[in-house]
Amino acid sequence: MTSTSTAENVRPASSNDVLAAIDMGSNSFHMVVARVVHGEIRTLEKMGEKVQLGAGLDDQNRLTPEAQERGLACLSRFAQRLKGFPPESVQVVGTNALRVARNTGEFIARAEEILGYPVEIIAGREEARLIYLGVSHTLADDSGRRLVIDIGGGSTEFIIGKRFEPQHLESLHMGCVSFRNRYFPDGKITRKQMDKAVTHAKQELLNISKSYRSTGWKSAVGSSGSIKAIANALATLKISDGTITRAGMEELRRRLINMGRTDRLGEIGIRIDRQSIFPAGFAILMGAFESLDINDMAFADGALREGLLYDILGRIKHEDVRERTISALQERYHVDQVHAEAVEETCISAWNQVAKAWGIHTSADEDVLRWACRLHEIGLTISHSQYHKHGAYLLRYSDLPGFTQQFQRDLSVLVRGHRRKFSPAIFEDLDKDDEYRLRHLCILIRLANIIQHPRNMEPPPAWTLHAHPNRLVLAFKKGWLDDRPLTLADLENEKEFLARQNFTLEIVDG
Amino acid sequence: MTSTSTAENVRPASSNDVLAAIDMGSNSFHMVVARVVHGEIRTLEKMGEKVQLGAGLDDQNRLTPEAQERGLACLSRFAQRLKGFPPESVQVVGTNALRVARNTGEFIARAEEILGYPVEIIAGREEARLIYLGVSHTLADDSGRRLVIDIGGGSTEFIIGKRFEPQHLESLHMGCVSFRNRYFPDGKITRKQMDKAVTHAKQELLNISKSYRSTGWKSAVGSSGSIKAIANALATLKISDGTITRAGMEELRRRLINMGRTDRLGEIGIRIDRQSIFPAGFAILMGAFESLDINDMAFADGALREGLLYDILGRIKHEDVRERTISALQERYHVDQVHAEAVEETCISAWNQVAKAWGIHTSADEDVLRWACRLHEIGLTISHSQYHKHGAYLLRYSDLPGFTQQFQRDLSVLVRGHRRKFSPAIFEDLDKDDEYRLRHLCILIRLANIIQHPRNMEPPPAWTLHAHPNRLVLAFKKGWLDDRPLTLADLENEKEFLARQNFTLEIVDG
Repeated sequence: MTSTSTAENVRPASSNDVLAAIDMGSNSFHMVVARVVHGEIRTLEKMGEKVQLGAGLDDQNRLTPEAQERGLACLSRFAQRLKGFPPESVQVVGTNALRVARNTGEFIARAEEILGYPVEIIAGREEARLIYLGVSHTLADDSGRRLVIDIGGGSTEFIIGKRFEPQHLESLHMGCVSFRNRYFPDGKITRKQMDKAVTHAKQELLNISKSYRSTGWKSAVGSSGSIKAIANALATLKISDGTITRAGMEELRRRLINMGRTDRLGEIGIRIDRQSIFPAGFAILMGAFESLDINDMAFADGALREGLLYDILGRIKHEDVRERTISALQERYHVDQVHAEAVEETCISAWNQVAKAWGIHTSADEDVLRWACRLHEIGLTISHSQYHKHGAYLLRYSDLPGFTQQFQRDLSVLVRGHRRKFSPAIFEDLDKDDEYRLRHLCILIRLANIIQHPRNMEPPPAWTLHAHPNRLVLAFKKGWLDDRPLTLADLENEKEFLARQNFTLEIVDG
Repeated sequence: MTSTSTAENVRPASSNDVLAAIDMGSNSFHMVVARVVHGEIRTLEKMGEKVQLGAGLDDQNRLTPEAQERGLACLSRFAQRLKGFPPESVQVVGTNALRVARNTGEFIARAEEILGYPVEIIAGREEARLIYLGVSHTLADDSGRRLVIDIGGGSTEFIIGKRFEPQHLESLHMGCVSFRNRYFPDGKITRKQMDKAVTHAKQELLNISKSYRSTGWKSAVGSSGSIKAIANALATLKISDGTITRAGMEELRRRLINMGRTDRLGEIGIRIDRQSIFPAGFAILMGAFESLDINDMAFADGALREGLLYDILGRIKHEDVRERTISALQERYHVDQVHAEAVEETCISAWNQVAKAWGIHTSADEDVLRWACRLHEIGLTISHSQYHKHGAYLLRYSDLPGFTQQFQRDLSVLVRGHRRKFSPAIFEDLDKDDEYRLRHLCILIRLANIIQHPRNMEPPPAWTLHAHPNRLVLAFKKGWLDDRPLTLADLENEKEFLARQNFTLEIVDG
């Protein structure tokens, strides 16, 4: 396994203005380390390895032990470089191969142990958003619409945007590793297989080609290793200066079929570790050229990992795209925002009193709690009956810009558990740490929901919370409960719900 | 088991202007037969039996064999009166007890056999809509807002509406059978248990009381056996003329607690088969009076079953509320309506050619197919990835005015199955007839989706379909496929998908 590394500068030992991102793709793992200079990102170091995780999926969609070892070995090399980075400066994400693998959980657990940072899985559309963010920062700041294509190992992203704002985001289930396995498994390149692969790509694109073409774009940009290799091949063959043109693509197709075997691709400048996937990546791009009627395309260097860096930077600068996503959800599902705010305020008033004692005091804990409060009623748009479950479904499966799949799962768990039975099913399939954290956060959102049940938008009650292991004492100011017999009845019910899960709620009046 | 029956008129042997509705409630089963006279409904016959299906749920939420027998015996008495009615004139629905029972399927199968008509389960909010429809037709046509309350055996419906239009529809999980079991299981009426029951009702009402009170109403109307019995008791006691007032309710509460036992309720005119549930119904109404701040309430005779009759009548007169629901869903989830219409047109062109041969030619088959086409893309609002599953979720769980739960399930199955693998999981848990019907309808929507995949809004192709058992031959006009290689590729994939489920698709060019 070769590891390519380019160091433009020496990395300072430890500094808050240095960021790092790791992207665990289906084909390659990449790491980029960068320094923030006047709000801009300057790359210090890039590393990449062709781990081919996607090729290590067996027919049950499980990552084989060998593939996991390749991935973990790569991560342990990356890990050396990350020592001493503060947690908020590092982001590690997995994409398609880890989205589809059925044993992703075990891989993540080991990866987190090696890296010492959380590992997140992102959805296809979120991947598209981050790619666009990365690419748009490397391009001249012009005002025309851009089409950006990124061919990954397991998925290909198509984005149309203007400046830094994406307008269409799509991620299609086709990539150079999956297409290689299907159409070029034996290293032969025939006309028939190439035609099949291109047709397959065009079928996938049928879902979006109409709307993309009607939106249109001024310039098309490609941003992955596959597209870079195609641009290099065209330059090597002197077909073009590196711009990918329609005519160049046609000519390259003829040449590939004439060569007939991937092990001859060195002749057109394709590195040995990319040869087996090259025709597959080519077929996907060819399908895109034909479906979307692309005339020419430039290669751009930015990609997912650069997008991650700009995303971290945005959060540090308090331009968190996630806040915008939450507001958009509230609008779309007609949330009673005044009520949601009252629940949030009450919940945070409780959290402030117990967070330290329960060890749920990170800013991520606060974020997930606040956002779950703002969204706890979104399921009402579907039906009043079981609306907590509908809300949980929406949060789990919706494309939410800025959110990782784990964060969406956490939001989903809290909304699912915010009312009715405190059932063990709510916390199913979580590892022990997540279960502990979400169980305790969930108790807080349940309490806030009970206090605000009468929907009078009252400020948080005058209460004192005493947190113990598996026990919470709520002391209300004398008289507060006397005026609120229904709240007291709700709290008595809650006592029973929690007691069934071995948690003691004590209510002290005065 | 007493069966009460009032016949106002002799029912004609068979006539298209006679309608019948059966409502299988958690407490009683009711049947009403009516004649349509100048577009209005004139009741011919009413029958009712206290089957107490809700009381026959065991602690696993399964209907006991005894409860099922009571229900089926009642239905066989009703069945006699239904002989010769055309299917479109009869509607049979089940409510809360059948919504929650885990073995509803077996009961429905036997009920349908006895009745010879389909039996449907309706969601709580749909029940509320139908109750309002029934009540509003029995009241003077004034223009003020009305609050309507209907206390059932397992759920209680709260509706605010103006004339025939409901504005708020809610169904809360509390009823006189479930409250009897919980608070008055032994026939004793104590102050403590009454207070607990009233408090429970008020807790349930917290979810809606704020918004209901802020909408407000001019008159409050109650419409169930429980409320009728309370009005009668107040009249018997000469506390009021039958109007249910706040003071009257307070007085009745004192009397009930003084009597202390349900078997003494005959003293205030409560029939023996209602005595055990009377205090429970009273507690729910008392909770509603207090939560919603009701001063007085009149009893009205219309209810769910009358609502069903008006609903049937509406469909006969082509004022199908379901069409409005479908359009509202298309709006809410931003459906590309032009594309949906193209899919619908293509699908119906296919259906017209095979419906007879496959025995899927009822108007209900056509309805479900058309509506599934109009809604097949609603899941896109959640995420592009797996959007057929998201659409299926929305159709299964949303409150859809006019739709029964089974019809929603059918729509959900067709949307779930309209693309990707033709997996057996799509048709899980269906009985054999439903599986046959939905499997074949699903094949048609899949074909229409493939034909319209390029989103060019083309008219249906020039094709001839030949339907055989487990086999379909598609003959395209010569040349049509030549211009459409991607459609051909999609059809070839589809061949494989269907073949895996032992269905043969043959494609003939010209």
